[in-house]
Amino acid sequence: MKYAAAMLAAPIAFYFDFSSPYSYIASEWVEALAARHGRTVEWHAMLLGATFQVTDIKSPVSYPLKREYSLHDFERSARFAGVPLKNPEKFPIATQNAARLFWWLHAKSSTTASHWARHCLRAYFARGVDLSDVASLRALAQEFGLDAEQAEAVWNDAQWKLRLKAENDAAIALGVFGAPYFVIDGEPFWGNDRRAQIERWLEKGPF
Amino acid sequence: MKYAAAMLAAPIAFYFDFSSPYSYIASEWVEALAARHGRTVEWHAMLLGATFQVTDIKSPVSYPLKREYSLHDFERSARFAGVPLKNPEKFPIATQNAARLFWWLHAKSSTTASHWARHCLRAYFARGVDLSDVASLRALAQEFGLDAEQAEAVWNDAQWKLRLKAENDAAIALGVFGAPYFVIDGEPFWGNDRRAQIERWLEKGPF
Repeated sequence: MKYAAAMLAAPIAFYFDFSSPYSYIASEWVEALAARHGRTVEWHAMLLGATFQVTDIKSPVSYPLKREYSLHDFERSARFAGVPLKNPEKFPIATQNAARLFWWLHAKSSTTASHWARHCLRAYFARGVDLSDVASLRALAQEFGLDAEQAEAVWNDAQWKLRLKAENDAAIALGVFGAPYFVIDGEPFWGNDRRAQIERWLEKGPF
Repeated sequence: MKYAAAMLAAPIAFYFDFSSPYSYIASEWVEALAARHGRTVEWHAMLLGATFQVTDIKSPVSYPLKREYSLHDFERSARFAGVPLKNPEKFPIATQNAARLFWWLHAKSSTTASHWARHCLRAYFARGVDLSDVASLRALAQEFGLDAEQAEAVWNDAQWKLRLKAENDAAIALGVFGAPYFVIDGEPFWGNDRRAQIERWLEKGPF
């Protein structure tokens, strides 16, 4: 079936935010899951804060009752997925610098950019490295093999500020209102907890 | 182990709202899942609208971008669970009458009350019966084997209005901010999509 063959080869679009614990958990399984089904992953760094402003949505941790549950659920869901996660002391944080660097790397190699994403997500959620702190982010960039001066110049560069904004606007235009958010064969899936549905889609197609 | 034995025998508290599609989906699997693990289910009818007011939370369908996705996800998640669901034309609806009748039945038999809950949830989400319409709800009560006059008298009775309010306040005090919401051995789980974590908890205990 020509249609199915063409569709099944399509990559998985994966929208994530550097300050989103569920994005972090998903970032740890999405590549292996895609590979098991002959797919690749297109990583899209976004700023959930900007998206929330446009859509009038708030973070789950901004509601008193929901906050306590959510913090508990972040760690439990990580354990359930077998991913090391310790709620960072400072949460959520501003992650535009890490995201701008992502898009700068992406212009050269989308693979390197995805490695940077995983490097940052693990640093923040497993080691407690504060991505919003310039010194910490410079050190992280250096650890990743980048020049810290250049990294800082990139995230202060208007070009990469605009690029991130454009990517965020494009995501919102596509209907992305949260993270992680996946688009597979045009089908949207929101949340780390849609993993089983995503797996079923990849195995057997539309349901 | 005395502790484990006592804990494992504890029932599953299941908080649901008659206008919540994810509650409906969960209502179709929670009894069988509990029984497989030697547990019973304590059904708690609540009004999510009242809870949202107190907690300043909004329904996912009240946000433009989230609304479209959610409506799609309701039906897809139902298909994934093997539960018949067709998004009702009128949604969400006021369900205090069905909930008051639930608590009236509950005072006599919690089992009968849970059957009423399933009867209503199926009627609304599989057959499109509008639970907020008095004539439809009277007919539904009659179909269930109740006297329609008496049913209407119950949901207009101050005693059952107060009882529902008290149950809702108790749920909020317990931390319930959404539905479906489960409490198992003191552990909270929010959402139909926590089914796999609930199953793991029931199988192997805390994780």
